[in-house]
Amino acid sequence: MQSDLATVVEGVNMVWVLTVTFLIFFMHAGFAMLEAGQVRSKNVANQLTKNLLTWSVGVTVYFLLGAAVSTIVGGFTGGGGADVLGAFTDLYMPAEGAAGTWVNWLFGAVFAMTAATIVSGAVAGRAKLRAYITYTVLLAGVIYPVVVGFTWAGGFLSTLGFHDFAGGVIVHAMGGIAGLTAAWIIGPRMDRYNDDGSVNVIPGHSMAFAVLGTLILAFGWYGFNVGTAASPLAYSEADGVTLASFAYVGRVALVTTLGMAAGAMGAGGLSLVKTGKVDTLYVANGVLAGLVGITSVADAIVWPGAIVVGLLAGAQLPVVFGFIEKRLKIDDVCAVFPVHGSAGVLGALLYPVFAVDLWAGNASFVELLVPQVVGVVVIAAWTLAATAAVFGAFRAAGEARVSREHELEGLDSSEHGVDTYPEFGGRDEAVRVDGGVRIDGGKRTRGSRPPSDRTADGGRVSGVEKTTTEDGEN
Amino acid sequence: MQSDLATVVEGVNMVWVLTVTFLIFFMHAGFAMLEAGQVRSKNVANQLTKNLLTWSVGVTVYFLLGAAVSTIVGGFTGGGGADVLGAFTDLYMPAEGAAGTWVNWLFGAVFAMTAATIVSGAVAGRAKLRAYITYTVLLAGVIYPVVVGFTWAGGFLSTLGFHDFAGGVIVHAMGGIAGLTAAWIIGPRMDRYNDDGSVNVIPGHSMAFAVLGTLILAFGWYGFNVGTAASPLAYSEADGVTLASFAYVGRVALVTTLGMAAGAMGAGGLSLVKTGKVDTLYVANGVLAGLVGITSVADAIVWPGAIVVGLLAGAQLPVVFGFIEKRLKIDDVCAVFPVHGSAGVLGALLYPVFAVDLWAGNASFVELLVPQVVGVVVIAAWTLAATAAVFGAFRAAGEARVSREHELEGLDSSEHGVDTYPEFGGRDEAVRVDGGVRIDGGKRTRGSRPPSDRTADGGRVSGVEKTTTEDGEN
Amino acid sequence: MQSDLATVVEGVNMVWVLTVTFLIFFMHAGFAMLEAGQVRSKNVANQLTKNLLTWSVGVTVYFLLGAAVSTIVGGFTGGGGADVLGAFTDLYMPAEGAAGTWVNWLFGAVFAMTAATIVSGAVAGRAKLRAYITYTVLLAGVIYPVVVGFTWAGGFLSTLGFHDFAGGVIVHAMGGIAGLTAAWIIGPRMDRYNDDGSVNVIPGHSMAFAVLGTLILAFGWYGFNVGTAASPLAYSEADGVTLASFAYVGRVALVTTLGMAAGAMGAGGLSLVKTGKVDTLYVANGVLAGLVGITSVADAIVWPGAIVVGLLAGAQLPVVFGFIEKRLKIDDVCAVFPVHGSAGVLGALLYPVFAVDLWAGNASFVELLVPQVVGVVVIAAWTLAATAAVFGAFRAAGEARVSREHELEGLDSSEHGVDTYPEFGGRDEAVRVDGGVRIDGGKRTRGSRPPSDRTADGGRVSGVEKTTTEDGEN
Repeated sequence: MQSDLATVVEGVNMVWVLTVTFLIFFMHAGFAMLEAGQVRSKNVANQLTKNLLTWSVGVTVYFLLGAAVSTIVGGFTGGGGADVLGAFTDLYMPAEGAAGTWVNWLFGAVFAMTAATIVSGAVAGRAKLRAYITYTVLLAGVIYPVVVGFTWAGGFLSTLGFHDFAGGVIVHAMGGIAGLTAAWIIGPRMDRYNDDGSVNVIPGHSMAFAVLGTLILAFGWYGFNVGTAASPLAYSEADGVTLASFAYVGRVALVTTLGMAAGAMGAGGLSLVKTGKVDTLYVANGVLAGLVGITSVADAIVWPGAIVVGLLAGAQLPVVFGFIEKRLKIDDVCAVFPVHGSAGVLGALLYPVFAVDLWAGNASFVELLVPQVVGVVVIAAWTLAATAAVFGAFRAAGEARVSREHELEGLDSSEHGVDTYPEFGGRDEAVRVDGGVRIDGGKRTRGSRPPSDRTADGGRVSGVEKTTTEDGEN
Repeated sequence: MQSDLATVVEGVNMVWVLTVTFLIFFMHAGFAMLEAGQVRSKNVANQLTKNLLTWSVGVTVYFLLGAAVSTIVGGFTGGGGADVLGAFTDLYMPAEGAAGTWVNWLFGAVFAMTAATIVSGAVAGRAKLRAYITYTVLLAGVIYPVVVGFTWAGGFLSTLGFHDFAGGVIVHAMGGIAGLTAAWIIGPRMDRYNDDGSVNVIPGHSMAFAVLGTLILAFGWYGFNVGTAASPLAYSEADGVTLASFAYVGRVALVTTLGMAAGAMGAGGLSLVKTGKVDTLYVANGVLAGLVGITSVADAIVWPGAIVVGLLAGAQLPVVFGFIEKRLKIDDVCAVFPVHGSAGVLGALLYPVFAVDLWAGNASFVELLVPQVVGVVVIAAWTLAATAAVFGAFRAAGEARVSREHELEGLDSSEHGVDTYPEFGGRDEAVRVDGGVRIDGGKRTRGSRPPSDRTADGGRVSGVEKTTTEDGEN
Repeated sequence: MQSDLATVVEGVNMVWVLTVTFLIFFMHAGFAMLEAGQVRSKNVANQLTKNLLTWSVGVTVYFLLGAAVSTIVGGFTGGGGADVLGAFTDLYMPAEGAAGTWVNWLFGAVFAMTAATIVSGAVAGRAKLRAYITYTVLLAGVIYPVVVGFTWAGGFLSTLGFHDFAGGVIVHAMGGIAGLTAAWIIGPRMDRYNDDGSVNVIPGHSMAFAVLGTLILAFGWYGFNVGTAASPLAYSEADGVTLASFAYVGRVALVTTLGMAAGAMGAGGLSLVKTGKVDTLYVANGVLAGLVGITSVADAIVWPGAIVVGLLAGAQLPVVFGFIEKRLKIDDVCAVFPVHGSAGVLGALLYPVFAVDLWAGNASFVELLVPQVVGVVVIAAWTLAATAAVFGAFRAAGEARVSREHELEGLDSSEHGVDTYPEFGGRDEAVRVDGGVRIDGGKRTRGSRPPSDRTADGGRVSGVEKTTTEDGEN
């Protein structure tokens, strides 16, 4: 009878883990659309191909190497040591009856691949395919597994008490920092900055795809966060069946919802205040930044904290993006650092303020804060160093980015030999702006009209007037 | 042992509720694509932003206010009274161990937000963002919660025996009626009607997005309907574990499937009869109308009834749309009333004809019909009155719609400062037709070609010939 | 107590079956986008309409006729005989308490409709809508049910030991062979081949939709494969609760993942070797071919086999596609035979090589191989014969394809009276190539530039240079 109940519990948990794993996998469609929408039409297929290959190459490497590296790093840095060979054989040849081994591996793999795919948005439009894929191999095989080893796999950050529920730092900030680092090393797209240091806006080719991607990601994110409550039921001879993570799954569901909602409002609100208009891409990225912000803490903060974290995660988007673009002069094409990096760090560092444990008097602010700071610093430093080393080596070898000719031509043609939209005209856009906020949307007027025609409103060239070149091409 | 089984049952039910809740949330991606596809390219980002903000603003308001309003209205109109303060505190601060409180709230919230987002399709292309968002706040906080209070939360319509299984009236007809009312008060788009009262067709910019949205919605709808069988298992000391709603979940799954299929065939068939062609947008909207039609009755009608309801729900689309467009002169851009309003009412009123209870001799036609009529009238009257009051106030204040200049420019630019497709040409379309049926698809020939060149086929200007302005722009 | 456990098991299994059924249904959105992306903009709505109607008409026919035909064919060819009338009445009027009958029917129906929808991609751009729909009726009512009768419903191939876990042959190869046959009978699009027998490339209108469709399909495929482990738990008085299919669900999850990943790598790798570039559409179709390849064997092969099957399934794509295009001169627009047909056959025939039973010494190579060969031959022969008969009859009656005028005009206008993208320009593309590989992406240079300007690289016309007609139209 008791073993019957244990089996029921195992079955229910497996149904749940599989369901949310599929949802998280579907986030690749979200990333593909989000990124494709934010690049020029000449680079869309390149972005899509990178997304497909990130998953394909990455997940294979994560099976053959990465998952075992996590286990090993977790064992050694957690002080317990590790059976190096066993880490591989337990996965390659699980014991009879270990029905869940490969299910649990896949559950881990979809998180790993989320981290990996974030990077492609930052280096869009100029990274060489072979450099990107090689980096993906290293990320899936070593760089991300080391982070997981330090944390979820029982390593020293775990011992220290670092709290990252579903990967706000481990997955998202890691991906955002890796993306920013890669974009920094590779350098900006050729038409992103002018000789005088001023910035050109290069709007994405389809806001519709960007928002579709956002909503797919939000859908998958429910799997990401709520699904991390990965064992709805538990069974022990002593206690019988208990609700395990379902004791807090309601909190995760609520906090995730309020966080994403507040993220949209924070980003949209700031956009309205600064420019008088509610920028669509801000709102969309605000949804994602809100989600990133509460991902590390969704199980353990009071719900008003979710609203605050979301609002701040959304509102920091334009500030951080502007800093990266104008001060650091890094061309983070899809704003992956503001969305995944700084938002993830923000949420993790605000944990002590809104922790249920603090408000219930079970923990002090400082004892909650210290592990968070250490965790963020360690993960950021490792990710930055490893990524800089890899892309630095590519750059030194002249293999980091495509030729100027290929970049001008577009990567769809030069790297993939395809044309994403053979029947639709493509005007190539790059707009000089002298201030103000816009992640998106300006439009270059071309041809015979004088530069003075570029009327700036709130620092953004109006997207309305359409002019055309003399030869009638568009 | 028995408490073990009770816990297992709770766990299984929670897994199910969460899974379908995520599916229903994903319907926002469906609505976003469906609506974006049906508007002109200059208004796409506006539609997408409204969808993102409907969810973000609405769900926050529904947590802070709306859900409690439902409970209170349900308590008072159901005759039992209500603990007003408790309605809030039970949600804000649920008791320890009440793991499901917030899960169940989120399950209710995704239904509420479905009702809210329907409205945006009706007022596309001219509603002011701030007016729309303010209405969303009121809908999420009061207007929809009152409807739920009357019904699912135990109010007087519930007592009366009004049957609405998953929200064919409560959610969809409510949204459709609200949308029609708002579109009526705001007035049509500036180029929708000519001075002589004749109608211009304004085709949506992407049939592909419209159909993608339809299929995403149908996917989510399985969660909406089948998921409303929200407690697969039940447990009591007396009876042990029983299959609860799973006794009829098979019926819901079958009826939902046949209803949507018949909706497509009804709409496509009528299109074929009237114009000799199978209009794609009719078929897509027919899928949705069929789903709306059987949503209120999916648990309790015989399956041949699903086919009849679906066929009628599909076939009424062009009739009702034509009536609204030509007689009422209301510009319901995305046909939300024919799809969600009249189809929802139709299904609810046909319930007595096809009720399992009638066919099994457990209830008479009249005793089934009366509550349905009363329910539809009450919900329609309340929704119409509340919506008319809100948008009437906006109109009186001159805040209901954007300026003619901004409407001409497009709301993407004027309200959001973005250009959805900066690299693709946009021809602005408005086609005069003098009769016949078309929700979609005509194409204006422009420039040097004379109006006589607009060959009508079945009342629709052929979408084939492509002409261009003299200056080579498109 | 024991009946309580039996009920719990029934509830858990039903939750799982419903969840994966919804995922598999969502594959229709994937097929719609995949196919829409691979056709010209003038035929997009036609493709979308066919997808909507395949589901709507097909699922209705499968309820009224097809499912019972499966049961009957299975009974008779399995040697047990069948209750012909009972096959219908058991479905139309299931006994009280048979909660799962309609749930299980829907689970079967989504597989049936997957087979049906594959065909539409092969006959894109010229099949008459009424011919296609009539074929869908026959496929859903008879052709596919006969295949299921032979196999899953207990027919003679099942008795023989034919192994097809989730439908790599029964669903996918069946659909791929039907599509190829239909495309062969109908003949190629009018501009696909030149008088001298040389081949024109007709690139699809949107790589973005094609890749979106691919990722939606991969998402749904997890339901298709992992979901086929359809009874996570089992209960019997003797054994109590056991994990049933969950003993191998981990294998299915892993093999499905590695198979799709290897498919992308196989196709992308071969593309790189042959043309020096990584063709995006190859990679996308490689994901699908890898999935098709392992679908029949995902429960029962060792995981290194999944990598081999995936790599081969991907790598055969260009070879098989080229053979069909250049030797057979069949215009399989969306490459459905290479993706679904040959990949499915490949996986089924490689089963004996990688079977767990072989490696564990429980079965010999030959005894595993024979049923696979017989199964593939029988299913292929039946599908080819039935499809050829139906489309042959249509062709004989002059009803198989639209007129040349309508084909030139585009099926969106001629069959549906709509324009998919009324605001975007459409350049009509057909490119002559003289050799080499490309499923996609060449671009015709038009107007004043001489043919010699069409520089071939690896047999593919570069997609980069954009020229325009003299009149400035595009």
